[in-house]
Amino acid sequence: MKIPYVCSTADDGLAQALEQAINNKTKPLGSLGLLETLAKQIGLVFQTVQPKLESPSMLVFAGDHGITAEGVSAYPQDVTWQMVENFLGQGAAINVFARQHQMALHIVDAGVNYDFVPRAGLLDRKVAYGTQNFLYQAAMSLQDCKQALQHGMELVDLCPGNVLGFGEMGIGNTTSAAAIMHILTGLPIEQCVGAGTGLSAQGISHKAQVIQAAVVHHAHVKDTDPLAVLATFGGFEIAMMAGAMLQAAAQRKVLLIDGFIATSALLLAWRLQPAILDYCVFCHCSDESGHQLMLAHLGARPVLQLGLRLGEGTACALAWPLLQSAVGFLCEMSTFETAQVSQSAAS
Amino acid sequence: MKIPYVCSTADDGLAQALEQAINNKTKPLGSLGLLETLAKQIGLVFQTVQPKLESPSMLVFAGDHGITAEGVSAYPQDVTWQMVENFLGQGAAINVFARQHQMALHIVDAGVNYDFVPRAGLLDRKVAYGTQNFLYQAAMSLQDCKQALQHGMELVDLCPGNVLGFGEMGIGNTTSAAAIMHILTGLPIEQCVGAGTGLSAQGISHKAQVIQAAVVHHAHVKDTDPLAVLATFGGFEIAMMAGAMLQAAAQRKVLLIDGFIATSALLLAWRLQPAILDYCVFCHCSDESGHQLMLAHLGARPVLQLGLRLGEGTACALAWPLLQSAVGFLCEMSTFETAQVSQSAAS
Repeated sequence: MKIPYVCSTADDGLAQALEQAINNKTKPLGSLGLLETLAKQIGLVFQTVQPKLESPSMLVFAGDHGITAEGVSAYPQDVTWQMVENFLGQGAAINVFARQHQMALHIVDAGVNYDFVPRAGLLDRKVAYGTQNFLYQAAMSLQDCKQALQHGMELVDLCPGNVLGFGEMGIGNTTSAAAIMHILTGLPIEQCVGAGTGLSAQGISHKAQVIQAAVVHHAHVKDTDPLAVLATFGGFEIAMMAGAMLQAAAQRKVLLIDGFIATSALLLAWRLQPAILDYCVFCHCSDESGHQLMLAHLGARPVLQLGLRLGEGTACALAWPLLQSAVGFLCEMSTFETAQVSQSAAS
Repeated sequence: MKIPYVCSTADDGLAQALEQAINNKTKPLGSLGLLETLAKQIGLVFQTVQPKLESPSMLVFAGDHGITAEGVSAYPQDVTWQMVENFLGQGAAINVFARQHQMALHIVDAGVNYDFVPRAGLLDRKVAYGTQNFLYQAAMSLQDCKQALQHGMELVDLCPGNVLGFGEMGIGNTTSAAAIMHILTGLPIEQCVGAGTGLSAQGISHKAQVIQAAVVHHAHVKDTDPLAVLATFGGFEIAMMAGAMLQAAAQRKVLLIDGFIATSALLLAWRLQPAILDYCVFCHCSDESGHQLMLAHLGARPVLQLGLRLGEGTACALAWPLLQSAVGFLCEMSTFETAQVSQSAAS
């Protein structure tokens, strides 16, 4: 397994040309706010002042977690496979939103503790029937971790467009994500742990204690070795997502980053290839406690703040039309000159 | 002119049925955040647990303002008619976003200081060639104010769907909106005044002084008489928008409220018919200083926070797909029972 090289999108000349194109549109300077930032970013990703977003795809990775044996989730582990069935039956939130926006939706079995009947829409990349309980041992071997990353990289080839969204499903995976966040950001565990699918305050406290004990158990795993962090505390869906993110950025696609778990995968990918941030649109700030701090750690400004905490890539689909709007104003609006509109006295 | 009666959407039985429908969907309780609030609100507006959003329209009202003679805007007054021409030429931001979402777009000349060549897409409801300078006299007569409201009410009949968005264009109209906000909310003028299309700090200070002087001049106009406030400090586009908002709510349509100026029109409509709030979706929090306080005064939670300050109804078009998502999850997602997904232990 070789980590793909992700190059920076920095290009002073193009950045200036994009700013000029944006500022010449018939609107007060800066008045489209974050849409202007997105338009410039997407122009830099695609290396053009006339970017086109094409054939967006969503990859939703599912995996099970041995740590659920410690009672860290409000839902039983079976919900992972049941929700995969729900995805395949078109009944989940991500189905509704992806359908609304004509985004291709691929469900990936990265490591669910269940044997699915093969069928269209389900990609079998199962590395194992869930991870080990990381309270006592590494969640996965380094070899399985690399296998998951490799699968993720190769999955990008199935997505023909230049925009890729990343979602996940995995009972227990906010516990993995919180542990990864704690190690990679250095923030106290209490700031990394939240309610997940709906823990009580007592449940959250227990979850933090489990992570604390696991971190002590794996004290030799340091943030300077992101692959070890991933193998020790991660999940197959998180590893596969990180691999897909790296490959998509290496191919100069726009990456739609969902919530707490997807951002934990991105944290890992970022440690491996820092320039990946240039390609990321952070689709929302989740209500999962910790996501806001994760975004702040990355210096990221989220597109939506709707109080979502669902995962599945839902925020990617919900934010997608705003990316279209960003590119739309850049490519379609008239300029002060062509529309013969007077400029500001200050211009 | 008769103000339409707007009845409350309150219905305990239906509200409970909607909450139950939302909570039975295959997702953690409350995990779709603001979308759940919107789904419930829209269900109450349409009086059904299976709401359908149909044929959204945008009404964009344009008008000129005598107060521009006091140097309160970064742009010359001519920009109002030039931007109307730009709307009709399909080159403005609202054209791009309305086109993206297949929203019907109607441009209304409510009182622009210009003679337009009649053409498709332009509705001539001109009450006058701009308002008077409200530093010295009322912006409009009470008769003209009522005429503008009446035009607004009648315009709703041109919009066949059950969703109506409201935008505006009018150089100088943040000055009107700030004055209306000051009188109706009681907040200090400094908290109501912002940069508009791009004033310097000095320009903002001057604008506040102009409003202060106008408020002193019209000291007899009290917040208890919203029509007098509107006639004294308003604009034709603001008055017409308020009339259209009232009529749309009376017809149980969903109202998409844009930014600072549209919300000032809503403040007036709300004083006339308080139940109108039940029908309003506040599409964003504008970067125009004061809008956040206006929303707080109304107890409103905005959908988007993108740092926009453009007007034209742009935020209505940008927020629209999120309303579709809200209704989409309510009508299309499977339930825990139909999808055979296990519920939370806490459920």
